[in-house]
Amino acid sequence: MITVLSGGTGGAKFVDGLHRVMPPQELTIIVNTGDDFEWWGMHISPDLDSITYVLSDLLSKDRGWGVEGDTFQCLEAMRRLGQPAWFQIGDKDLATHLLRTQLLQSGKTLSTATLEITRELRIEAAVLPMSDSRVETRVTTPEAEISFQDYFVKRRYQDRVISVRFVGAEEAKPASGVIEAILKADTVLFAPSNPITSIGPILAVPGIRDALKQTEARVAAISPIVGDAPVSGPAGALMAAQGLPVSIGGVAQAYEDLLDVLIVDAQDEVSAGSLRRSGLEVHCMNTIMKTLDDRDELARAVLSLVAEASTSQIVP
Amino acid sequence: MITVLSGGTGGAKFVDGLHRVMPPQELTIIVNTGDDFEWWGMHISPDLDSITYVLSDLLSKDRGWGVEGDTFQCLEAMRRLGQPAWFQIGDKDLATHLLRTQLLQSGKTLSTATLEITRELRIEAAVLPMSDSRVETRVTTPEAEISFQDYFVKRRYQDRVISVRFVGAEEAKPASGVIEAILKADTVLFAPSNPITSIGPILAVPGIRDALKQTEARVAAISPIVGDAPVSGPAGALMAAQGLPVSIGGVAQAYEDLLDVLIVDAQDEVSAGSLRRSGLEVHCMNTIMKTLDDRDELARAVLSLVAEASTSQIVP
Repeated sequence: MITVLSGGTGGAKFVDGLHRVMPPQELTIIVNTGDDFEWWGMHISPDLDSITYVLSDLLSKDRGWGVEGDTFQCLEAMRRLGQPAWFQIGDKDLATHLLRTQLLQSGKTLSTATLEITRELRIEAAVLPMSDSRVETRVTTPEAEISFQDYFVKRRYQDRVISVRFVGAEEAKPASGVIEAILKADTVLFAPSNPITSIGPILAVPGIRDALKQTEARVAAISPIVGDAPVSGPAGALMAAQGLPVSIGGVAQAYEDLLDVLIVDAQDEVSAGSLRRSGLEVHCMNTIMKTLDDRDELARAVLSLVAEASTSQIVP
Repeated sequence: MITVLSGGTGGAKFVDGLHRVMPPQELTIIVNTGDDFEWWGMHISPDLDSITYVLSDLLSKDRGWGVEGDTFQCLEAMRRLGQPAWFQIGDKDLATHLLRTQLLQSGKTLSTATLEITRELRIEAAVLPMSDSRVETRVTTPEAEISFQDYFVKRRYQDRVISVRFVGAEEAKPASGVIEAILKADTVLFAPSNPITSIGPILAVPGIRDALKQTEARVAAISPIVGDAPVSGPAGALMAAQGLPVSIGGVAQAYEDLLDVLIVDAQDEVSAGSLRRSGLEVHCMNTIMKTLDDRDELARAVLSLVAEASTSQIVP
């Protein structure tokens, strides 16, 4: 059993590979919902969507978000009706948001809504939101505190970030199945997602850190930082705002005492050496996923590393 | 000032012509909302949409409903998600439903939502829902009592109709502006809509019948029945179910003592004669609107009739 903590973009690529190279029913993905927001009266869960779409082979390969081959007729009509249009929802994509919103409004939890959607799409892996409670990632810039979507999509992460907080996290509970998935896993993987705003909100839900410490599973992270920069997105600026170096060392610091293993890119061989001296098990491999083959190769390499580790644990 | 009571299909064609041949700011349309229903978690107002779309030149000319040139990507995605897909909502059309639902959920009335939508679409005529309260047209068939959309769209009006009722009508109030639009009009026109399920729900809202009796405006209806059949839709079966003859005489009966004038098709010249003997003013003209020109001609003929009448009243 493998349990992955994941955000949207980089996480979706990694989960896609894993899902192809292992039995999907042995895979559980715990997904960040700190980016969730209301849009056009609907509840949008961007990271749950990316994971759901990639697992059902619907994710747009060009864009990395939304549905492959989608059109934007509703968006254009919304614009004509004077409505905000900076968050781009495609027409096919809309169906997921409408269904989720309807399920939530009928009183179902986000977990149940996610289960119903993934079942309809014949997804065999378990996709769990980190929490059924609302946790909202807020970004403080020199001008104002804004929502993550404002920062990331509307303002294209150009603002300087002073700090990040997760509103509602303290009162949130892990969604049904989350703690069990961590405790019962053989391996827990942190996808190469943004440590601050993708994995951070998951770790901020009370009980999840403790489960990660308690679990007998080996806990491994794939670094989203290669050299001194993120593979994509605002992870660098967000880590710096939290006082972390933008490096594999910063990733190790972000995850503090939770990790048994850090998997870094082959380019970071040298830095890996110094990290190892601090006591962390560090492995180098190609972590940059440009093609579908890259995704599968990374997944296979990670799984093989994990399998060796459990063998070596059983037969020391 | 001209005030029109209207449903969707036939009403939209008539309103379209009127809107082109008169100053739009002198036109008020009071629209049936008995067909409104919940779909995919949204509030759908089919007749308000048809009137709104025709007035903003968005209505599909081929289909007579929905938006011209619309696509159905969301509908297909909903089908893939196992959701009902018998009510066909196009992608552009979706924007209107999303915006209306959002406005209603924020606590606004259907009147206010309609005003905001029509303003965004630069519609100068006043479009008023008959009521801000929920009035639901229910159709009793030999098997069950079903909603109007079930009867009309899902089951394509093939069931035998035993009776029709308007749930919630007794407690409903006319929407803001409705009574005023009837009392202050020079002419009130009943569009060639279904007398039972398009005009019927409007007349069932307490206060509207009284206003039609009190108003000094001349009240004229355009018959949706030509010969012994409706121009389109289930008006015939529904009239028969209410014990009315399917004829211009049945239309006159449906509107009882509310009409000063009935406008019928030229084909009904003979029946018009016998109706006149009962004391009703009946005028014959071409009422069948196949082309846009037909719409304009009917509108001009109706307006000219009304203008003559008011002159003859002033100078007897």
